[in-house]
Amino acid sequence: MFEKEYDVIVVGGGHAGAEATAAAANMGSKTLLVTMNLQTIGQMSCNPAMGGIAKGQIVREIDALGGYSGIVTDKSAIQFKMLNKSKGPAMWSPRAQNDRMRFAEEWRLILEGTPNADFYQEMVSGLLVEGNRVVGVRTSLGIDIRSKAVVLTNGTFLNGLIHIGEKQFGGGRAGERAATGITEQLVDFGFDTGRMKTGTPPRVDGRSLDYEKMIPQPGDSIPEKFSYLDTPVLKEQRDCHMTHTSELVHDLLREGFDRSPMFNGRIKSIGPRYCPSIEDKIHRFADKNAHQIFVEPEGWNTVEVYVNGFSTSLPEDVQYKALKSVKGFENVKFFRPGYAIEYDYFPPTQLKHTLETKLVDNLYFAGQINGTTGYEEAASQGLMAGINAHLKINEEEPFTLKRDEAYIGVLIDDLITKGTEEPYRMFTSRAEYRTLLRQDNADLRLTPKGYELGLASKERLDSMEEKQRKSDDFIHFFKKTSFDPEEINPILERVDSALVRQSDKLFKVFSRPKVSMDHMLELESVSHFVAENDLGREVLEQAEIQVKYSGYIEKEKNNADKLHRLENVRIPDSFDYSKLKSLSYEAREKLEEIRPVNISQASRISGVSPADISVLLVFLGR
Amino acid sequence: MFEKEYDVIVVGGGHAGAEATAAAANMGSKTLLVTMNLQTIGQMSCNPAMGGIAKGQIVREIDALGGYSGIVTDKSAIQFKMLNKSKGPAMWSPRAQNDRMRFAEEWRLILEGTPNADFYQEMVSGLLVEGNRVVGVRTSLGIDIRSKAVVLTNGTFLNGLIHIGEKQFGGGRAGERAATGITEQLVDFGFDTGRMKTGTPPRVDGRSLDYEKMIPQPGDSIPEKFSYLDTPVLKEQRDCHMTHTSELVHDLLREGFDRSPMFNGRIKSIGPRYCPSIEDKIHRFADKNAHQIFVEPEGWNTVEVYVNGFSTSLPEDVQYKALKSVKGFENVKFFRPGYAIEYDYFPPTQLKHTLETKLVDNLYFAGQINGTTGYEEAASQGLMAGINAHLKINEEEPFTLKRDEAYIGVLIDDLITKGTEEPYRMFTSRAEYRTLLRQDNADLRLTPKGYELGLASKERLDSMEEKQRKSDDFIHFFKKTSFDPEEINPILERVDSALVRQSDKLFKVFSRPKVSMDHMLELESVSHFVAENDLGREVLEQAEIQVKYSGYIEKEKNNADKLHRLENVRIPDSFDYSKLKSLSYEAREKLEEIRPVNISQASRISGVSPADISVLLVFLGR
Repeated sequence: MFEKEYDVIVVGGGHAGAEATAAAANMGSKTLLVTMNLQTIGQMSCNPAMGGIAKGQIVREIDALGGYSGIVTDKSAIQFKMLNKSKGPAMWSPRAQNDRMRFAEEWRLILEGTPNADFYQEMVSGLLVEGNRVVGVRTSLGIDIRSKAVVLTNGTFLNGLIHIGEKQFGGGRAGERAATGITEQLVDFGFDTGRMKTGTPPRVDGRSLDYEKMIPQPGDSIPEKFSYLDTPVLKEQRDCHMTHTSELVHDLLREGFDRSPMFNGRIKSIGPRYCPSIEDKIHRFADKNAHQIFVEPEGWNTVEVYVNGFSTSLPEDVQYKALKSVKGFENVKFFRPGYAIEYDYFPPTQLKHTLETKLVDNLYFAGQINGTTGYEEAASQGLMAGINAHLKINEEEPFTLKRDEAYIGVLIDDLITKGTEEPYRMFTSRAEYRTLLRQDNADLRLTPKGYELGLASKERLDSMEEKQRKSDDFIHFFKKTSFDPEEINPILERVDSALVRQSDKLFKVFSRPKVSMDHMLELESVSHFVAENDLGREVLEQAEIQVKYSGYIEKEKNNADKLHRLENVRIPDSFDYSKLKSLSYEAREKLEEIRPVNISQASRISGVSPADISVLLVFLGR
Repeated sequence: MFEKEYDVIVVGGGHAGAEATAAAANMGSKTLLVTMNLQTIGQMSCNPAMGGIAKGQIVREIDALGGYSGIVTDKSAIQFKMLNKSKGPAMWSPRAQNDRMRFAEEWRLILEGTPNADFYQEMVSGLLVEGNRVVGVRTSLGIDIRSKAVVLTNGTFLNGLIHIGEKQFGGGRAGERAATGITEQLVDFGFDTGRMKTGTPPRVDGRSLDYEKMIPQPGDSIPEKFSYLDTPVLKEQRDCHMTHTSELVHDLLREGFDRSPMFNGRIKSIGPRYCPSIEDKIHRFADKNAHQIFVEPEGWNTVEVYVNGFSTSLPEDVQYKALKSVKGFENVKFFRPGYAIEYDYFPPTQLKHTLETKLVDNLYFAGQINGTTGYEEAASQGLMAGINAHLKINEEEPFTLKRDEAYIGVLIDDLITKGTEEPYRMFTSRAEYRTLLRQDNADLRLTPKGYELGLASKERLDSMEEKQRKSDDFIHFFKKTSFDPEEINPILERVDSALVRQSDKLFKVFSRPKVSMDHMLELESVSHFVAENDLGREVLEQAEIQVKYSGYIEKEKNNADKLHRLENVRIPDSFDYSKLKSLSYEAREKLEEIRPVNISQASRISGVSPADISVLLVFLGR
């Protein structure tokens, strides 16, 4: 049925699978996406939103590289917010609410419009492996489909087990069946596997809610968007609403704790720490008497509503009774209860930086199968796995991102170096160079790389280069142009900043914390330059950030350079740690397991001390 | 979780379930739609098309009564054709190709916009029955939801078993699980059950087809639509394409016959006679060396394509090899193979005319569970079941349609009187009064009834009454207006019809077979009347049909009146046939089983002879 050999087979059509398929196909690989249901490609399984803190930056990075998550988000958005706008630009994080149906439809149409991407609906039940190398997949009908590489993006489907109260049943998502066969085979190959848990809140009927009792959460008055390309900006937006739980709600929930799979030992695996169930929240933070609930519409027209903050696997009657006591939910009607799901993952220390497995050549893992949580984390891994699968089978150099280049680099380095025992979610705090990894400069950081890979279009590159050139020119203008004290002092006085006696360069006064671009624009010379050079919002923002944060940026760049020097000390693939008796036993064990590719990575492994690093450096000739 | 008792619970969200939910809710019943997956409401499980011969008439009837299938079809249509336009108006049958995603989305939005309709996602695994009466459903989570009536519309999901070649696995549709529990419980209550089979062709990638080698099948140049309301008319349309099988294709298919579940005995149940699998066609019509294949796009933008005419459950490799040999399919890529599915149905002689079961009060069956095939047949049953569930619990008179009033009446009367041992599909030939049951007059026949039920809006009624008044006036005009021979003779000469010598009424010459409305419009008096009274296309068509077919229509009306006289001879509910020894043994047995409500229905039972009817008439005092 499949005569020809594919270059790449992607298993699964969620965020990871969709990006992996698009990346490999757009780079020129004949790619086949195999999914259990072609109608659920690009499903938002949990909340109808993309981005958020650190996650929004990832979506911008995916977009800058030539992935599609940003474009799909923009085309299906119903609300946009730039989070943390009151903090420094490293913290600014874009977030969108989405129309769930539109989101999936956009993904499907984009993939269908990708000439090298083929599609096939069936469950993959096993891998074809010859020697140490994957050569295709076998479906549940027993069809063998051959390929040069395989990317697994199985999400929560591998031996998925759904829990609601004391009931449990197999399933990959509500109403969908679990996938079986793959885990067992990988364990036979020697893979370690574990179980993780995640959960989802009830979906309810928006017509049954009293929004008057809740606090509206509108989008930004001037909404931005995710893609650096020319996607549409929202003209209209839908509000979310906020309400909160109460002591009464908590008491009602506690009544179900003895029937909770979380507390009675039925669920043994660990759930996402930063996206806990409501029962977890009231259990862990017993002194808090209220938790926020965000009521998120599922689309432009549907009445279905997502109850963000109320993820739960308590018995459905307990869910119902408790939610009814939440302000605004007095007459709530359920579309379906919340539930928890346990699924197989593979500790990601079994992967290389390219997301290829160490045990089986040309086999890549991306998304929840690696122990991560979140659409954005999944999508970025899919993109990187798709890229690297293509590069590997074409015998090209692998493509990886460093920790100072992208959140994607931080994510993958964390995963493969430290592993994870609970669902891994990205935060700005995980990035030591977060001042460099901003949402505003993902294009400057990554589009040249995406273009070189053949993923980012010339249009993307041109637009990024223009933005760079214009903001460089603008910064140069500030550095070379002098101000007239008489013109600047009224502004300084207004913002309560020390007055100046004599003329100096604009850059100097612009660097002061209280002086903003808006103030600069009051100066005739500046506004003239902006008009003459046709500088848009993005350039103004970029220039302002680079001027005002130049100190921090410089400092982080220096730190990163130091790291790069350690990164240049490569450790040979087959390095024998056992002969370095001066390494601590723990360090030897961990280094054997992780097999870092350079000293920098070695230094990030927990249990490897600075003393161990010195030993390695000495031995490796430094 | 469900505190209050619902009036009506509808199980299943396909064509039958959607119409049942809308009807009951719009009539004022608090209605709950329970479905295994809220995202698949209104799915077109098989071909992406609505209507066709006799089926198009049914959709028009649903629309005339105030159902939604016509509106949903119009809003999601990508092509429209009036079939059989060259035949008499009784044969004219509207048919549309649809965008599968849009169709489901329109249904979902319509239902969500129905104030009395609630939704819940879960599998129903049993019924709550007290005494002889259904009082709700039990879900797979063990939730009891109480209601005054229940409508079952389970489609192919009851113990669904999917077959592809020698493989078989449980499932309600590709990628969806089967529903269990209900059949077993109904059998315990004493219901007879049987198995039926249906099938579906492969879905393929349109990008892999060579349309140059096929024959385009465009829509009508002036497309009409289904709804009598103001739904949009298509401005653009997508073509279908035609190709055909060949001896080579048949030979390739035959190679798989020994592995076919149809031929090796694995599938025992009977499939739809008029929608056979391709293997069935080449087996039954061994002398035909080609069968038509219609290549139908699945939507405006998607590349997915439905291979109409190639339904099959042969092994997937055989499907592939054979389809590749079809002209235009040389490079075909499969999205998924075709398959057959076996499912439980309940012989519909166990139902009353209202679709309520005879064994369990307030329990209604609609759609494939009654042994029918086709979206339209299912939708119309759903509508009737929803209406009657509402009427029953409000202690109002049941609503049924007679065989001379609607195809829906023919359908239900056939089902409950004759039963069916193979999937029942509507044809014009099943209607003895098909000249009365035209697609052009469904509104005139049924909208007054729909309005009285509270389903059809005032807008519908007004528009129907205006159409009726205008066409009556127009016909009256033809009857009273005389022509001038000098004006009419050139036209008659042109169409080769006998010339007239002297003036007479227009009606007389218009009745001639060769004279059409277009000819009439050439007459100054006629065109003047049309302009003055602002008569639209529908009124012209209606008047023309009523003038030209008045003889046939009159005759059928007389026959129907005779039938009505027999219908007025009602048979008491508890009539004891065993005491009428002069009835044939077979008649007694069948009458006991079917329990017809009147002599007319009794006469249609196979095995009941005219002699038996005479006995009954004598006994009942005629």
